[in-house]
Amino acid sequence: MAERRVPIAGRYTEQEVALAARNRGMPLEALRYDVTPAGLHYLLIHFDIASTDEALWRLEVQGCVQHALSIAMAELKAMPARTLRVTLECAGNGRGQVSPRYPSVPWLEEGVSTAEWTGVPLAAVLGRAGLAPAAKEAVFHGADRGIDRGVEHDFARSLGVAEVMDESVLLAYAMNGAPLPPQHGAPLRLIVPGWYGMASVKWLQRIEVLDHAFDGLQQTGSYHFRTSTLDPGVPCRRIRVNSAILPPGIPDFYTRRRTLGAGTISVQGRAWSGEAPIRRVEFAIDGHWQEAQVQAPAATHAWQAWSFEWRAEPGEHELASRATDALGNVQPLDPVWDLGGFGNNSVHRLRVTVL
Amino acid sequence: MAERRVPIAGRYTEQEVALAARNRGMPLEALRYDVTPAGLHYLLIHFDIASTDEALWRLEVQGCVQHALSIAMAELKAMPARTLRVTLECAGNGRGQVSPRYPSVPWLEEGVSTAEWTGVPLAAVLGRAGLAPAAKEAVFHGADRGIDRGVEHDFARSLGVAEVMDESVLLAYAMNGAPLPPQHGAPLRLIVPGWYGMASVKWLQRIEVLDHAFDGLQQTGSYHFRTSTLDPGVPCRRIRVNSAILPPGIPDFYTRRRTLGAGTISVQGRAWSGEAPIRRVEFAIDGHWQEAQVQAPAATHAWQAWSFEWRAEPGEHELASRATDALGNVQPLDPVWDLGGFGNNSVHRLRVTVL
Repeated sequence: MAERRVPIAGRYTEQEVALAARNRGMPLEALRYDVTPAGLHYLLIHFDIASTDEALWRLEVQGCVQHALSIAMAELKAMPARTLRVTLECAGNGRGQVSPRYPSVPWLEEGVSTAEWTGVPLAAVLGRAGLAPAAKEAVFHGADRGIDRGVEHDFARSLGVAEVMDESVLLAYAMNGAPLPPQHGAPLRLIVPGWYGMASVKWLQRIEVLDHAFDGLQQTGSYHFRTSTLDPGVPCRRIRVNSAILPPGIPDFYTRRRTLGAGTISVQGRAWSGEAPIRRVEFAIDGHWQEAQVQAPAATHAWQAWSFEWRAEPGEHELASRATDALGNVQPLDPVWDLGGFGNNSVHRLRVTVL
Repeated sequence: MAERRVPIAGRYTEQEVALAARNRGMPLEALRYDVTPAGLHYLLIHFDIASTDEALWRLEVQGCVQHALSIAMAELKAMPARTLRVTLECAGNGRGQVSPRYPSVPWLEEGVSTAEWTGVPLAAVLGRAGLAPAAKEAVFHGADRGIDRGVEHDFARSLGVAEVMDESVLLAYAMNGAPLPPQHGAPLRLIVPGWYGMASVKWLQRIEVLDHAFDGLQQTGSYHFRTSTLDPGVPCRRIRVNSAILPPGIPDFYTRRRTLGAGTISVQGRAWSGEAPIRRVEFAIDGHWQEAQVQAPAATHAWQAWSFEWRAEPGEHELASRATDALGNVQPLDPVWDLGGFGNNSVHRLRVTVL
């Protein structure tokens, strides 16, 4: 089952374009916002946006628990809530830039955003249910159903028992202070800070606690770093260190290439890692790397702003940004090839014309 | 200047994919909503989302008027407002399906949505300014600046003096009852019901009344139906009659092909025209056309729901919908080729597997 489609090179297929048109990136100029407006947050919808009714919605908690639960939304909303600012990134962000690439959503750079999520800590609900001693993993079942590589299923992902007790994992029902929009999982979704987006299951309807490892398609057949179909691979989990440049100047409509006037400008951007805070961002002009200024984290799981004063001189230039986190993880200069097109955190490069 | 890029065929370029990723279609399952949630409304952003500050924003009204105006947002919001439900469609919707196609946003079917827009009738503001007798057109200048085919400009479009006095044309500051989001033109945009989306200028900062026809790039160099670069063409104006099917069943992740169980199902969809109400929708199963049920319009400028009871039998089927408006305009069975890829209103076709 592992990434069964055949990698392709060169121009993009109609299927990739259809996925790019229905899913959505965050236009890079939205890097200007500390918190991405809800309608600009990137989206990756595996199947269809589920049709749900909050008044009838119940979260079922089942399996290896002391007390199975069935919780109405009103009951969940009456529990103590937390709001966390969290940067999410699609595990496939950057896929469209590797060659050959896996046929899926052909993200270039725009599958990342930051929002403020409000909800009940998952640990509080699981505490109420009481994990049985044999509990090993919790599976989160969404309501979006479809077929992937011949297997019909509801999108589902699991976390280990240690991970589910992390107080930052939320059962979220609000985004940026407003009710969760349909496309972000209304009425209820999981938010797993620090992890690639596939862990944050939308339209969450059921938590199933298992005494063994979950072997669903989205857990074992996808979201692994693999060098070939024979490679068992390493699961995609925490977001790799990454950064992006808020594009300076003005764009050309078709090529999106930027043009700006000569002079000193403050180039801005964001950097993030699911492993640790960002401790360094470097900025390159035509391959010459220099230190950028990095702001302190505004929140544990949110991107950090950076800036660089650039004396822009007339000509064609390539700009690039490269982040390093506090664990010493650093972005590679070039994409590291992966069968499924996951985790491409190579430096962001932008070509500009200075007049 | 007219559509100067060279049409291409076959697979899609990285530039087209980048435009598909940053602009966004309405996922077709959102056809289920009478009013599209704001974050699901399709988007076509010519250049960048403008960075604006409502507190400082002023709408300038200049040129062939009795009294030039400079109106703060607070002043505009104190004027009598109207709310209208309006279906907008990108003039390029369907471009990605014609061959060869113009290199631009490669919409397939998803560049259409419906929202409730609140604002001040443009006629009220122009009434205050007083059109001079020589006034011929009003030009609407947005704040999104960029380069298209070598020409640097703010996105701008014009309407004739008869068109601007239509009471349904709004200076809108709210969408679906909430403040206009940044990507939809905050703090102020034009809404021109019945017209393709290019007329509804976002981030509206200036209205310039001319005593002659506007010759800006987006007015004369684009948005024309042309058979060749030598053809002066016919301007894109009102939305051609069109329809879409709410995809039944469940999707395959990559191909988006649908699968459903045998039996009687109610297939739903929407139909719209900028010229007149929809009076007929036909639904075809494997090329055999039958009458669908069409609901009466919920609003003058909003799409109409339709449905068809289908006794789905096992096998592979092609579904299609075709609308006719009250003026007798009917969707063509196949795309009518256009140099710029505008106005492709050919019937919506959907391939499904019935199990």
